[in-house]
Amino acid sequence: MDHIFSYQHLREFTREVFIRMGCSLEHADKASEVLLSADLRGVDSHGVARLTGYVRLWEAGRINATPDIRIVHETPSTAVVDGDGGLGLVVAPFAMEVALQKAAVAGTGWVSVKHSNHFGIAGYHAMMALERDMIGMAMTNASPLVAPTFAKERMLGTNPIAVAIPAREQPAFVADFATTTAANGKLEILQRKSQEAPEGWIQDKDGASSTNPHELRSGGALLPLGGDREHGSHKGYCLGAIVDIFSAVLSGANYGPWAPPFVSFLPLPPDPVGEGLGHFFGAMRVDAFRPADEFKAHMDNWINRFRRATPVDGQQVLIPGDPEREMEKERREQGIPLLEPVIKDLREVGEKFKLSLS
Amino acid sequence: MDHIFSYQHLREFTREVFIRMGCSLEHADKASEVLLSADLRGVDSHGVARLTGYVRLWEAGRINATPDIRIVHETPSTAVVDGDGGLGLVVAPFAMEVALQKAAVAGTGWVSVKHSNHFGIAGYHAMMALERDMIGMAMTNASPLVAPTFAKERMLGTNPIAVAIPAREQPAFVADFATTTAANGKLEILQRKSQEAPEGWIQDKDGASSTNPHELRSGGALLPLGGDREHGSHKGYCLGAIVDIFSAVLSGANYGPWAPPFVSFLPLPPDPVGEGLGHFFGAMRVDAFRPADEFKAHMDNWINRFRRATPVDGQQVLIPGDPEREMEKERREQGIPLLEPVIKDLREVGEKFKLSLS
Repeated sequence: MDHIFSYQHLREFTREVFIRMGCSLEHADKASEVLLSADLRGVDSHGVARLTGYVRLWEAGRINATPDIRIVHETPSTAVVDGDGGLGLVVAPFAMEVALQKAAVAGTGWVSVKHSNHFGIAGYHAMMALERDMIGMAMTNASPLVAPTFAKERMLGTNPIAVAIPAREQPAFVADFATTTAANGKLEILQRKSQEAPEGWIQDKDGASSTNPHELRSGGALLPLGGDREHGSHKGYCLGAIVDIFSAVLSGANYGPWAPPFVSFLPLPPDPVGEGLGHFFGAMRVDAFRPADEFKAHMDNWINRFRRATPVDGQQVLIPGDPEREMEKERREQGIPLLEPVIKDLREVGEKFKLSLS
Repeated sequence: MDHIFSYQHLREFTREVFIRMGCSLEHADKASEVLLSADLRGVDSHGVARLTGYVRLWEAGRINATPDIRIVHETPSTAVVDGDGGLGLVVAPFAMEVALQKAAVAGTGWVSVKHSNHFGIAGYHAMMALERDMIGMAMTNASPLVAPTFAKERMLGTNPIAVAIPAREQPAFVADFATTTAANGKLEILQRKSQEAPEGWIQDKDGASSTNPHELRSGGALLPLGGDREHGSHKGYCLGAIVDIFSAVLSGANYGPWAPPFVSFLPLPPDPVGEGLGHFFGAMRVDAFRPADEFKAHMDNWINRFRRATPVDGQQVLIPGDPEREMEKERREQGIPLLEPVIKDLREVGEKFKLSLS
């Protein structure tokens, strides 16, 4: 049975947890906003369900509650940000803001980030660009769970890419997706329900196709978008690799199999090649290319035309961002349903900090 | 039976064809270099096999042999280039050069292009960045052959993305891929051999999965990377859409189903929403983020580590760009094999311009 909690209630609980971890009011407020944006948009795997994970990393000394987040290198259109081990939930909006400010002056802004950790949903950060009539981009590397094409070994994270593009009358185009066939969150749902996974999502420890959603526990791996070579998995591998390089090789973070795990019970790799996890953000002023009104009118036309594309019988053609926007509307009004195990975790976190979830 | 032609021979033949079309010596030389780079790298569908297609478009008045290619808008890190209906093969290197020069000053450069047409292989343009210690990106929209997830209708091109990243001792990382499960060229090979396509590549006119490689002739469509919704086709659709918007909505070219067809026998859409086809190019100076030597040493480490990832038995883990680089080495030495129908087409083109292929 799910229980429903209001957005405000979960937001305040989460903010209070971050404050008691030692975060500043400003950081705690931002971190709770970013974390809860995942629950609002229906990406439950990246929302409050992860709060306990952040707390454990902090207890293990792997998250700095009072980071000195700063620019360590810059040019007119670029910067490298050092997250100082802070919550990715606050490092990422800081870095995206730098990208937006660069874009305001230079037309575009591109920021690579080191020494960070999990930043919540990529879409939140990309969408920061929209109200300034800019295109926003956000990506991050992550714990290695994905085998490149022809490999047994887990070398890449699910390395998501988000791109947000403003329109005029229409809601914005917001793509936000893992570069794997299925995100890890989808697998977790199957695990809880003891259901088989479709072919093309995972492989076993020998690299053979598998439908067992628990395969990752015994040396298996998630597969890059495409699934296998015949269906273009080398393209998904390329995408995951590009995200890894932009996020971590450009910034000086750990890349590939050296990316630090999100879970505190796994040891950090003993031979780091950089600092923490990496992210990459981009902002492009629309009027650095053509007048913003003109661009946005054509985006309306693009969106209208694609929404009206002849659908397969019984289906409807969607615009990227449609399902999440509808989910957010519903959950802001009706509340956020949480699963029993998540509620149990949150209660334990609450007890730790003498807070009641109620 | 294939016949083998030397690179130099095909290069000179192609250059001469462009000269007799009325191109300047400089444009003819560049266009032949870009076109032949596809044959060298083993992307046969985008090389001299297309020469006859360019000639027919020129005959139909859809390619301007003497374009005034120019910047029509710019900021420190961006520009819009008007290709004036010229060969994409020369418009694209012009625009990429603008991106590289912007990057030299501002750290990065981003150029959206309108009023162009097919630009050959995306990888060529992205790789222009490598010798300047920059990361290069190239993408383009194309004739609509691809149905978005849940659609019957062809709305997007195969919209490729190329990203080239320099290393130190190792050869560069060069990803270059269509945002569909399989590029159209792969389908053409199956058509010639009368072989069935794997599931997940194409659908029939009703949106049902099909293995008939001729399905596009009867209203079928190529599928976005992922194939179907369960295997992440909505992500391939997102990628194709992003390429379309960056290439054509940012620049003022035709987007989505309005993208002009490459073949001269199909009419142009009667209600254009912009000018010609669009491209998008990016250049990022590596040292706009960290010292180039340091970055390139870590890229060597990245490449070495991924090359040594434990392979599936009997396989080898590849780095993006490996197969094309090996093919180029072989074909520069041993020549380029052409199929009979391609040779026949080239002879016809030769006769038109009083040139002998020999």
